[in-house]
Amino acid sequence: MLEKIRPKAEDRKRLKEAADAILSRIEGLARERGHNFKALLVGSGARSTWLAGDHDLDLFIAVPDGADLKDALELARLVAPVHQEKYAEHAYIHASVDGFEVDIVPCYHVLNASCLRSAVDRTPFHTQYITSRITGLEDHVLLLKQFMKGVGVYGSELRTGGFSGYLSEILVLRYGSFLGVLEAASGWHPGETIDLEGHCAQAHEEPLVVVDPVDPYRNVAAALTLDKMFQFVAASRCYLARPEIEMFFPLGENVLTDQEIIGRMRERGSHMLLVEFKAPDVVEDVLFPQLRKAEESARAMLERHGFRALRSDVYQAAGLAGMLFEMEVAELPAVSKRFGPPAWEGEHLSRFLSAHIQKLSGPYLEDGRAVIEVRRKYTQAWKLLDKEILNLALGKHIAAQIRAGYRIYYDIEILEVKDLEFRTFLSRYFKAHHKIC
Amino acid sequence: MLEKIRPKAEDRKRLKEAADAILSRIEGLARERGHNFKALLVGSGARSTWLAGDHDLDLFIAVPDGADLKDALELARLVAPVHQEKYAEHAYIHASVDGFEVDIVPCYHVLNASCLRSAVDRTPFHTQYITSRITGLEDHVLLLKQFMKGVGVYGSELRTGGFSGYLSEILVLRYGSFLGVLEAASGWHPGETIDLEGHCAQAHEEPLVVVDPVDPYRNVAAALTLDKMFQFVAASRCYLARPEIEMFFPLGENVLTDQEIIGRMRERGSHMLLVEFKAPDVVEDVLFPQLRKAEESARAMLERHGFRALRSDVYQAAGLAGMLFEMEVAELPAVSKRFGPPAWEGEHLSRFLSAHIQKLSGPYLEDGRAVIEVRRKYTQAWKLLDKEILNLALGKHIAAQIRAGYRIYYDIEILEVKDLEFRTFLSRYFKAHHKIC
Repeated sequence: MLEKIRPKAEDRKRLKEAADAILSRIEGLARERGHNFKALLVGSGARSTWLAGDHDLDLFIAVPDGADLKDALELARLVAPVHQEKYAEHAYIHASVDGFEVDIVPCYHVLNASCLRSAVDRTPFHTQYITSRITGLEDHVLLLKQFMKGVGVYGSELRTGGFSGYLSEILVLRYGSFLGVLEAASGWHPGETIDLEGHCAQAHEEPLVVVDPVDPYRNVAAALTLDKMFQFVAASRCYLARPEIEMFFPLGENVLTDQEIIGRMRERGSHMLLVEFKAPDVVEDVLFPQLRKAEESARAMLERHGFRALRSDVYQAAGLAGMLFEMEVAELPAVSKRFGPPAWEGEHLSRFLSAHIQKLSGPYLEDGRAVIEVRRKYTQAWKLLDKEILNLALGKHIAAQIRAGYRIYYDIEILEVKDLEFRTFLSRYFKAHHKIC
Repeated sequence: MLEKIRPKAEDRKRLKEAADAILSRIEGLARERGHNFKALLVGSGARSTWLAGDHDLDLFIAVPDGADLKDALELARLVAPVHQEKYAEHAYIHASVDGFEVDIVPCYHVLNASCLRSAVDRTPFHTQYITSRITGLEDHVLLLKQFMKGVGVYGSELRTGGFSGYLSEILVLRYGSFLGVLEAASGWHPGETIDLEGHCAQAHEEPLVVVDPVDPYRNVAAALTLDKMFQFVAASRCYLARPEIEMFFPLGENVLTDQEIIGRMRERGSHMLLVEFKAPDVVEDVLFPQLRKAEESARAMLERHGFRALRSDVYQAAGLAGMLFEMEVAELPAVSKRFGPPAWEGEHLSRFLSAHIQKLSGPYLEDGRAVIEVRRKYTQAWKLLDKEILNLALGKHIAAQIRAGYRIYYDIEILEVKDLEFRTFLSRYFKAHHKIC
């Protein structure tokens, strides 16, 4: 098992060499230009806790207070002439070098982690904290990371909302071993708190609170969602009850065929409603919160009009992004009740009644309130969404894309979307299966 | 106007004579048998506040403490040989005598209204209280009663839940005139309290509290529903803003034809669901609470299974009784979410999961709780009702009738019910129009 996930000696050597080469080129260039910059390898590459097959290198260029991050970015550009410029809190560089996916990130060199100028400034402190303590526990970290991957909770990007690498390392430090973490997690409740350095946690609202050893004000598990946390908890319980290697390496997912999708839809009898548009050109950590917000806003609108969604989800695939709603109630009769004020508010009542001359029946009283039955504006969920989509609370990037164009697929029409990434998303949607027990 | 509703001199004379004749026959028979019973004319007949055209006579036989109500009932039987025996709290007699509908009711003669042995014992005190005070205000009572009739809030039977004759008399005493009542009512709020004798009301929960002048513990308006109360309030406002004689005498209702019913159903697009059974042989005050209870229980069951009723109502017509549900959601997809315990309750979770092996998808977590998607047992509201009707909370009389047989009519099938009384009910249902402003 470990054979499979532990990087081989030659891979470690290659990674070390690649990192060193870039680091010394950066420092060389910095010296030439008179910059007092420090280049560092951070992340799992720095402490032998990366999973075999991962080829990510995180390199930071720390600039002293008063210096300009732009100068560091310039060095990064020179070191990796073929690159993409990306943007989180600040700009950084992504490039492929010698088979490695390299991020080169400018940051401020601060004296301790509580006087950060930006979130990335914290990373070198993490590296330092873990590196000095993890020796001898690396395999446990590897097992835990692979287990989290296998059960679908690894990755702290906002798309996943799972456990970060740093978080998994802290858990191993706290509980001493892979199995120790699983055993502890089996008994977790919402609000669980881990405070390695006894910093005394600030009040956090998140379901899991892990006080950052290098920054007492920060919850390392802030991005972890309640559901991902307890997917891990429930999966830990499964594994302890019956350890199975498949939990680390789940069998390949099969993507449903057209016929199977039709079968699922018939079996369920619900109505699928898909809104698809061009994905805006932003990183996932910007895109997914906006997608989720649009999804929630759309669901609230559907419910407000009397429709009912069973489930919904969002995706990004092949340059497109979208929201999928599985409707339990997708059509409604024309008649709809409009509730007015209580009958004892005479003036409001008159105003309500004179505003609703057009009616199917009423007025009558129900629980003391006036009711008029009127013709419903939208009797079909897809039409409501089609007409009102731009009135939803949409993030600015998504609003711009939707304004430029979108398409609604209803029921069987979703088969027109052939893209494999979408079909994988859809197949997962239908199975909606997590390893829990 | 008053011409029309005030009983003519000759009618008063006829009523007086008819009442006197029966009363003296009762007292004669009582004397013959050595009973110390007192026969009384009570109700509106006793105080000239009955509406022309009403031919109801309420006669009470008051028996002293220690005597047997059965002896009084026996006298009533003899006085009206052709009669029906009815039953409220105790047995009483209903008969047609000389064109009058006569109720002869045995009661206990108690010394004051707070030492009642049964609810009817209070009535003679009411008669005494009103008779001695209403002189000169009779026409106002007549106008108020006719107005209440016209706007559909007169009658304190449980079917109507409106204003009793006694209540309307108290209102006239309180506010001095017909218009005085309407003006006061225009400003009513829920919890309005009227306490003529300054008894200091007990805490009552009802929307209108009218402390009974002869029994401080009783709310005269206990049977009045919130909606009937405010139908009256809102109608009072209409009348004061624009007095129209039609509010006293609404135009004849037209019963919808088959074509009109079909038109209404198409226009609304909802689904009608009717359950009909033989009406049990009990008075309306027993039947209607049971019907309402069955209606509520059925609606709760429908909603629990995911269906949604827009409105519902109950009726009794031509020896049959039933419940009508207008469904907003009458069909649902096969797939249905079953929510399990939160994932941190490990044992509950395992039990939940092993109880749901049969599934369409899942398990997954939602807001920390396990969810399994299963096949819904009932995808159609009418089938649910058909299969589960005997599991509803049904009053015993209705339960017995439904056990003996019932029929469900769905959508257009309701046209098979031709009975005029039902059609009147149905027409009113569709219009659902009350005079409010």
